Amino acid sequence: MGGRAATHLADAIAERGATAFVHVGDRNDATLRYLAGPALPDRPSAYVRTATGERVLCPPPGAANAAREAFDGEIASADSLGASAPGERAAAVLDARGADGDETAKAVLTTAAIPHAAALYLERAGYDVASTDALAAARALKTEAEIERLRAVQTAATTGVRRAETLLADASRDGDGRTLVHGGEPLTTGRLRRAVNAALAGAGVEPAGNTLVAAGATWRDPAREGDPVPIAAGDPVLVDLAPRDATGYHGRLARTFVVDTEGGWDRRAHLAATRAREAGLAELEAGTPASRVHEETAAEIVAYGFDAAGDTRTNGSRGSRALGHGVGLERREGPSLTATSDLAAGHVVALAPTVFDAAEGGGVRIADTAVVTTDGYELLADYSTTLSPTAEPQ
Amino acid sequence: MGGRAATHLADAIAERGATAFVHVGDRNDATLRYLAGPALPDRPSAYVRTATGERVLCPPPGAANAAREAFDGEIASADSLGASAPGERAAAVLDARGADGDETAKAVLTTAAIPHAAALYLERAGYDVASTDALAAARALKTEAEIERLRAVQTAATTGVRRAETLLADASRDGDGRTLVHGGEPLTTGRLRRAVNAALAGAGVEPAGNTLVAAGATWRDPAREGDPVPIAAGDPVLVDLAPRDATGYHGRLARTFVVDTEGGWDRRAHLAATRAREAGLAELEAGTPASRVHEETAAEIVAYGFDAAGDTRTNGSRGSRALGHGVGLERREGPSLTATSDLAAGHVVALAPTVFDAAEGGGVRIADTAVVTTDGYELLADYSTTLSPTAEPQ
Repeated sequence: MGGRAATHLADAIAERGATAFVHVGDRNDATLRYLAGPALPDRPSAYVRTATGERVLCPPPGAANAAREAFDGEIASADSLGASAPGERAAAVLDARGADGDETAKAVLTTAAIPHAAALYLERAGYDVASTDALAAARALKTEAEIERLRAVQTAATTGVRRAETLLADASRDGDGRTLVHGGEPLTTGRLRRAVNAALAGAGVEPAGNTLVAAGATWRDPAREGDPVPIAAGDPVLVDLAPRDATGYHGRLARTFVVDTEGGWDRRAHLAATRAREAGLAELEAGTPASRVHEETAAEIVAYGFDAAGDTRTNGSRGSRALGHGVGLERREGPSLTATSDLAAGHVVALAPTVFDAAEGGGVRIADTAVVTTDGYELLADYSTTLSPTAEPQ
Repeated sequence: MGGRAATHLADAIAERGATAFVHVGDRNDATLRYLAGPALPDRPSAYVRTATGERVLCPPPGAANAAREAFDGEIASADSLGASAPGERAAAVLDARGADGDETAKAVLTTAAIPHAAALYLERAGYDVASTDALAAARALKTEAEIERLRAVQTAATTGVRRAETLLADASRDGDGRTLVHGGEPLTTGRLRRAVNAALAGAGVEPAGNTLVAAGATWRDPAREGDPVPIAAGDPVLVDLAPRDATGYHGRLARTFVVDTEGGWDRRAHLAATRAREAGLAELEAGTPASRVHEETAAEIVAYGFDAAGDTRTNGSRGSRALGHGVGLERREGPSLTATSDLAAGHVVALAPTVFDAAEGGGVRIADTAVVTTDGYELLADYSTTLSPTAEPQ
């Protein structure tokens, strides 16, 4: 847990006059990872932070030694507590610290996502449970160490996009003069996605179920599964990645390529998305209202003559989105780019301007991830925004 | 949702005289995936099943159309409900169906893992919340369609082990006569893991953060991260995989290889693990107490002269485990192989007999996944258990 989370939690505990903060989650729970590290047991653990700053992890039965290797605070084993359910273990830790002795200090802060069963155990043990969003605010502000991880996973993401771009650049046309082949086999969205995912895995990150590859008419509803949609020259091909590293941090990088573009709708859409990206990035700076990033991105898309119709799936056939979101232990987390609160140094955000038109046979999206600084931003990794795929320089 | 879940839930609702079942989870929540499918919105959705069998999904604001494409039941949008929090949306769905009109039928069943905030919304709306484990029992019994998915992901897992075995078989010794090199570069655990993960991704499945590659002394605490531990001839090399397909189903396959084994401790440990595997598999049959699988596996390890010391991390240096667990939308789920309840046809279980001794420089684990049938079992995929790696047949 970063010092920032410690400060936010300590402040929240003090402000509410609480005796402790408690959260319960399994190894996939981003909040618990943030608090206790990435190598947690599969089954739910309870995390307790007391008003005096003690940090105690209560792993499930049989997992105490594994937890000891994963967590740098105190471990309270299920055996030593004589309690098997995670909420019961958390209550036992609080009881053992005499938290129930003082009638005036029995409030316990939790996240809103704490399992109901765990909250009930705390309540039955006599604690008043109240939720806090202190952690979400802390998580949105990345430490230098977190930014370093995010930079590494975003750099790995460029390897995935590079693989896709290279395959597209090296493809040739099939006998029909339209569909693409590579190495004698049809180049399909499924094949491209598997190749991209293999490149990500080879670069040491997980595709994490987030790899979208879509071409032409499949753009609107890009499947994450193995549907072998053939890719044709002239199709806008979306490669949209949000890989995850071994500690749980995500990247977000998307590019759209067209093999042998004829310079029509796709070029205009690509220009709009590129300019929208620049307009959004130009707003990134500590102290700027977050919603302005979204507004400026959307305004640029509209300025190029495209609809600014919220959800591409809503109207079904045509639209654009100035999609953006925070990136971290969840692929989408705080800060919100539609909120009026200010950006701060250490916020890490993805901008993903998108233009779509089914009648034109697809869409264009360009997504990048950047860290907000006191006087601007830094892209976590750089990658060309060119529409025509080019083979890797030798 | 399979018909099995529908039956289990309907029975639980009827038995408890409840008005509905409610669960809340995000796109990573295995229970919600089971109920509503794999392509859910990132943010939490509420799932409602009424006593009359209606299935309603309440997606987060702005995600109604995406949810409509992902879920085959009814969609109640946040806008139409005038409610933004998932528990509030579930309560609104129940209210709209007049569930609050009948004073005798206001009980609502939930999972124990439902977020506390969601349960509070239901309680504030006048519903009595009680938890049920009907879904866990339903999930443990796989349908034919689920078994087909599990078979496919387990088959993909063999591709990953195959890649590791081939790299080890093709490796040669470095100048020191001990450490392995391949293609002129040292063969490390990190490199082997990245190659395995690339093979999994190329086969269309996610490594899912579960790929363990450990060699020699690193066996005890196999890192999932990029530590480049050099692999040496004579080191037991563990390759332990639990990949996940695009719909969330997992496999589990582990093999241990030794390049140029000298036929000492590792051969004996490998023989014990192999025989323990056979003993465990021989117990798989509908009607057998699940705990007998664990007992027979452990007994075989002990018969070969190895400790049966529960947790390899507990005694720190030496031990064995007859690890086994159900496999499905979570990499470990029901049925428990230490429970006394009977196995049933459709249970899918992994057996992972393990022998470890730090003094001997490592350990041996062999893991396979099988579906229980009325008269035995069927391995979801087959793979040689040979200790010495052999190159892929041409």
